[in-house]
Amino acid sequence: METKRAVSPGGEKWLGQAIRCLDHGFVYLVDYMGNDEAIAQAARVSYGKGTKKTSEDQGLIRYLLRHRHTTPFEMVEFKFHCKLPIFVARQWIRHRTANVNEYSGRFSEMSKEFYLPEPKVISVQSQGNKQGRGNALSPEEAEVVRNILKSDFDIVYGDYEQLLEKNVARELARIGLSVANYTEWYWKIDLHNLFHFLSLRLDAHAQYEIRVFAEAMADIVKDTVPFAFKAFEDYRLNAMQLTAVEMKMVRQGAWPKTLKDAEMYLAVFIPGERERNECIEKFRRLGLVA
Amino acid sequence: METKRAVSPGGEKWLGQAIRCLDHGFVYLVDYMGNDEAIAQAARVSYGKGTKKTSEDQGLIRYLLRHRHTTPFEMVEFKFHCKLPIFVARQWIRHRTANVNEYSGRFSEMSKEFYLPEPKVISVQSQGNKQGRGNALSPEEAEVVRNILKSDFDIVYGDYEQLLEKNVARELARIGLSVANYTEWYWKIDLHNLFHFLSLRLDAHAQYEIRVFAEAMADIVKDTVPFAFKAFEDYRLNAMQLTAVEMKMVRQGAWPKTLKDAEMYLAVFIPGERERNECIEKFRRLGLVA
Amino acid sequence: METKRAVSPGGEKWLGQAIRCLDHGFVYLVDYMGNDEAIAQAARVSYGKGTKKTSEDQGLIRYLLRHRHTTPFEMVEFKFHCKLPIFVARQWIRHRTANVNEYSGRFSEMSKEFYLPEPKVISVQSQGNKQGRGNALSPEEAEVVRNILKSDFDIVYGDYEQLLEKNVARELARIGLSVANYTEWYWKIDLHNLFHFLSLRLDAHAQYEIRVFAEAMADIVKDTVPFAFKAFEDYRLNAMQLTAVEMKMVRQGAWPKTLKDAEMYLAVFIPGERERNECIEKFRRLGLVA
Amino acid sequence: METKRAVSPGGEKWLGQAIRCLDHGFVYLVDYMGNDEAIAQAARVSYGKGTKKTSEDQGLIRYLLRHRHTTPFEMVEFKFHCKLPIFVARQWIRHRTANVNEYSGRFSEMSKEFYLPEPKVISVQSQGNKQGRGNALSPEEAEVVRNILKSDFDIVYGDYEQLLEKNVARELARIGLSVANYTEWYWKIDLHNLFHFLSLRLDAHAQYEIRVFAEAMADIVKDTVPFAFKAFEDYRLNAMQLTAVEMKMVRQGAWPKTLKDAEMYLAVFIPGERERNECIEKFRRLGLVA
Repeated sequence: METKRAVSPGGEKWLGQAIRCLDHGFVYLVDYMGNDEAIAQAARVSYGKGTKKTSEDQGLIRYLLRHRHTTPFEMVEFKFHCKLPIFVARQWIRHRTANVNEYSGRFSEMSKEFYLPEPKVISVQSQGNKQGRGNALSPEEAEVVRNILKSDFDIVYGDYEQLLEKNVARELARIGLSVANYTEWYWKIDLHNLFHFLSLRLDAHAQYEIRVFAEAMADIVKDTVPFAFKAFEDYRLNAMQLTAVEMKMVRQGAWPKTLKDAEMYLAVFIPGERERNECIEKFRRLGLVA
Repeated sequence: METKRAVSPGGEKWLGQAIRCLDHGFVYLVDYMGNDEAIAQAARVSYGKGTKKTSEDQGLIRYLLRHRHTTPFEMVEFKFHCKLPIFVARQWIRHRTANVNEYSGRFSEMSKEFYLPEPKVISVQSQGNKQGRGNALSPEEAEVVRNILKSDFDIVYGDYEQLLEKNVARELARIGLSVANYTEWYWKIDLHNLFHFLSLRLDAHAQYEIRVFAEAMADIVKDTVPFAFKAFEDYRLNAMQLTAVEMKMVRQGAWPKTLKDAEMYLAVFIPGERERNECIEKFRRLGLVA
Repeated sequence: METKRAVSPGGEKWLGQAIRCLDHGFVYLVDYMGNDEAIAQAARVSYGKGTKKTSEDQGLIRYLLRHRHTTPFEMVEFKFHCKLPIFVARQWIRHRTANVNEYSGRFSEMSKEFYLPEPKVISVQSQGNKQGRGNALSPEEAEVVRNILKSDFDIVYGDYEQLLEKNVARELARIGLSVANYTEWYWKIDLHNLFHFLSLRLDAHAQYEIRVFAEAMADIVKDTVPFAFKAFEDYRLNAMQLTAVEMKMVRQGAWPKTLKDAEMYLAVFIPGERERNECIEKFRRLGLVA
Repeated sequence: METKRAVSPGGEKWLGQAIRCLDHGFVYLVDYMGNDEAIAQAARVSYGKGTKKTSEDQGLIRYLLRHRHTTPFEMVEFKFHCKLPIFVARQWIRHRTANVNEYSGRFSEMSKEFYLPEPKVISVQSQGNKQGRGNALSPEEAEVVRNILKSDFDIVYGDYEQLLEKNVARELARIGLSVANYTEWYWKIDLHNLFHFLSLRLDAHAQYEIRVFAEAMADIVKDTVPFAFKAFEDYRLNAMQLTAVEMKMVRQGAWPKTLKDAEMYLAVFIPGERERNECIEKFRRLGLVA
C-alpha cells in the first residue's frame, strides 16, 4: 500500500518472511517504524538543525551510538511474531522494556510441539562456566538423551490430552506440560532496547537456544537500519572494556606478555582469581599476551 | 512510497500536517505504527485464532479496553513533533513511558518565542480548586497582565542576547529565560500509554495550556484508530467510577435525591467533606440528584 | 537494629515470616521502605506544606488514591521472597514494573517440588469464561487427575536426574521439567504498581493459583500501610465503573429493573451480547435489577 | 527506632543531613532500602545458595557489576529530597526510571530563590564542545553577567508578586519566572539506575550545575553501599571502552606512538575526524601516545 511514512527498503524485504529457529520455532517481522534517517532526524531536533544530506546521517548515527546518546535509537520500533520454547520465553521476557502478547494456555490448547535439541548441540555441563555447556556428547549418547526427552514429551502430552478429554480446565490441565513446549508471541521493542537485548543474547555466554533467535532478529535489524547496526557492531558488540585496573597496567607498561608475567603482575593489581583470568583473556584478545 | 506494513488511512491524512496550539506551538504526526486491525491481530495471538473478519475487530477491541487487557493497545505507536512552552513540557514529561528528543538550549540558541495567553484565558485563582483557575479577568485587566508578561519576555530575551554577545556559554546564558519560552521535541508513545496521558490531560482539571495539546493529539488518534478511540471514550474518558461506599448507597436506595438528603446520607457513609461534595456531584451527573 | 528511617510496626511484624501458598510455595517480606506517613510526606512536597498531624494523613492518602495521584504511592517499596510454580511465575512476570532475581536452572539444579492441586480446586473448563474454571470434579475424578499429574512429575524428574547423571548441561537437562515445577525469586515493587498487580490478581478472573499469592501479599500490605490499603479497597478493589452508556441509562431512568426490561433497554443502548450481560450483572450488583 | 530490616551504618549517617548544592540547593537522604549484603543476598537467590560469609560479598558484588548482572543492584533503593534550579530539574527528569514528587507551582507559590552562578563558573562558550563551557570570564566580566541575571530575577519575581496580588491564577502567574528559579522534589531510584544516572552526570561533559548534585549523591551512595560503589568506580566510572577498530589497532601493534603516527594510522582505520581525535585521546590516557 501507499504510505507517506519513513520506509526502510531493507525492512520491507523481511515483512512476513519467517526465519526458522530451532526445530519448530520462527521469527518474522510483523511491522517496523522508522529507519536510519529517522534516527538522525530525531537527533537533529535536539540540535535545532534543519534537514541534512543523507550522506551525513551515518556519521551522526555513529557519533550518537559511541557517546551513549540513546534516545534517538528509541525512535525506531520493531514488531516480531515469534514461536519459541517456554524456557526460552522465560529468559527472553526478563527484558522488560518491550510489549508482549503471548499465546494463552488458559484460553487455548497448547500445541504438541516440543523442542528436541539436535544431537550436535547436546553437551555436557561446562566446568569453567557454571551456567554453560562444555563439549558435545557422542552421537550415540546424544541419541539416548533425545530419546529420554522425546519420551517425556510424548507422555506428558498424552496425559494433557487425556485431562482435556475429562474436561479438566485448560489452565490446570497444562501444568504437566514441559518447559520445552512451544509458545508464541508478538514482541515489540524499540531499537535502543533491542540493541541491549542483542548485546546480551548474541553473547557466547547466552544459552544457545535463545542465541538462535537473537541471530535471526539481528539479520532483520541489520537490513532495516544498516548504519545503526554497523555502529552497534563497532562500538558495542565487538568492543571491549578496560577496567580502571587494566588501564593502570597499560599505563605502567605492565600488561602481561606471558602467562607467567600475567600472574605476577595481576596478583599485584587484581585480587580475585576469576577477575585475573578474565584480564589475561582480554590481553590475549588484544594480542598482547601470547 | 510503497509499503507492506499495516496502513491507517486516517493516520496518513495527518502525517506532517501541523495542528496549531496556543500562540506559537504545534503538534504534528511524524510517524505511526499499526491501526485498529493491528490491535485485534495482536490480541488474537493470545487466543490462538486465525485471521478474522474486520467486522469482528470492533467488538474485540471494545472487549479488550473494557476489561483492561492493555497489551494489545501497546502494539500501536505514535510519533509526534511538538512545539510547546517549557512549563507545559514540564508537566508533559512526567509521563515517563514515552521516548523523547528535545531541543537543547546547551547546544543551540533558544528562540524568541514565548507563550502569551489570550485575554479570555487569563483567570483568577480558583477558590475551590487550589491548582486551578476561576473566572476570567475583565478584558482590561487581562491586557494589563499580558503587558506585564510581555515586558518580562522582552527584558529577559534582550539580556539573553546580550549574554550570547559576550560569548557566555549557551548553557548558562539561558538560565534567565522564562518557563513560557518555547521548546520543541519528538515524542513517541504507544497507544495504551497515550490513552493514559489523554485521560489525565483532556480532563477539566488539567491546566488549559496542556489540554490544548492533548486535544490536538486526540483528533489525530481518533482518525488513526477510530474503533479504539471510540472504546476509549465510552469506557474511560466518559465513564464514571462508583466507590465501594457509593455502591452501598445505591444498593440501600440511599442515593441523595436532594442536596439535603445528600448531606444526611453522606454524613453517615462518607467521612470527609471533600469526598461528600464529589459524591453529590457524581449523583448529580447521573441525574439522581436535582 | 537501630534505624532513623521511617518504620512501619505492621510491616516489621511480617519480616521473614513466611505465608504458605499452595503445597510447596510461600511468600515472605524481606524488606520494605516507607509507611503511610511517607506517602503523605511525599505528597506534601508537591503542596509545599510543612509536616502535618498524623491524623490528617488518612484523609490526604484517601484523596490521593481517589484522584489517581499515583506518584506518592510509588514512594513505598516492598521486597518479597516467593516460591511458586513456573506457570504462576509466567503470569506474574508480565507485570514489568518490578525488580526480580530468580533461581536459575542453568546454574543450579531444580528441586523435586511440583505443584499438585488439592482435589477441591480441580475443576472442569468453564463454559462462560473461556479462560476459567467451572464446577469442581468429584473427589474420585479429582484423584484420577492428581494421579496423572503426579505420575508425570515423577517420570520427568526421574529423567532429569538421569540426564544430570550423564553430565548433560543443566540448562538442557531441565527442558523436560514441567511448568508445575517450583522456582523461587526475590520480587521488589513499589506500592502503586503493587496495587495494580493486586487489583488484577485478586480478581475472581485471575487463575486461582496466582490469587493465593496475591492474597498473601495483600495481608502483608494491609498491615504495613493500613490507610493506603483501606483507600485501595474502597476506591479500586471494591469500586465499579459505569460506562458512558450505562451512565446514560441511569440518567434516563432506564436501568433494567427486570431481566426482561434489561434486554429491551440494553438492546437499544449496547450492541454486543457479552457487554449486555456484563451490564445486567453490574445493575444486579447495585441492587437495581432483581 | 528498632527495625529487623537490613541496615547500612554508612547510610544511617546521612539520613536527614543536607548537602548544600549551588547557592540555594541541597540534597539529603530521606530513606534507603538495602545495603551491600542485600545485593549479594538477592544474587544468591539465582544461584540457589544459602547465606555466605560477608567476606565473600565483595567478590560477588564485583563479579556482578563487571558482568552486567544488573538485577541485584535494583534491589537497593535511595530516596532523596532535593532543591534545585528548574533547568537542572529538566535535565535530571530525563532519567525516567525514578519516582518523583515535585513542588507544584499550580498549587503553591514559587519561592524567591534563583540560581546565581559563582563568578568562577561563568565561562565562555566552548569551541570544541558545542554544548559545553570554555575558559572562565574575567572576574569583572563575570560580575557584569551576574548583575544582568540578578536584574532579570528581580524583575520577573517582582512581576510574579504583582500578578499574584491581582489574584491571577498561580498556574498562569508563574509563566514569567525563569528556569533558574528553584524547585524541590522527592526523588527515589534503585541503585542500578542511580549508577546509570551518576555515570552520565558525574561525567566531565555534564553541565556543571547538575554535576554538583550528582557528586553530592555519589558521596551518600559511597557510604551506604561501599563495595558496590567501589566496583562501580573500577568497572564503569573509571573504565574505558576500546572500539572494534581500536582493538584491531592494538592487535596490529598499530597504536599511535606519536601524534603523527596517530594521524597516519587512524586515517586508515577511522573515517571521521571527530572519532580520530577521540581515539588519540584514549591512547594518550593509556600512556601509549605521548
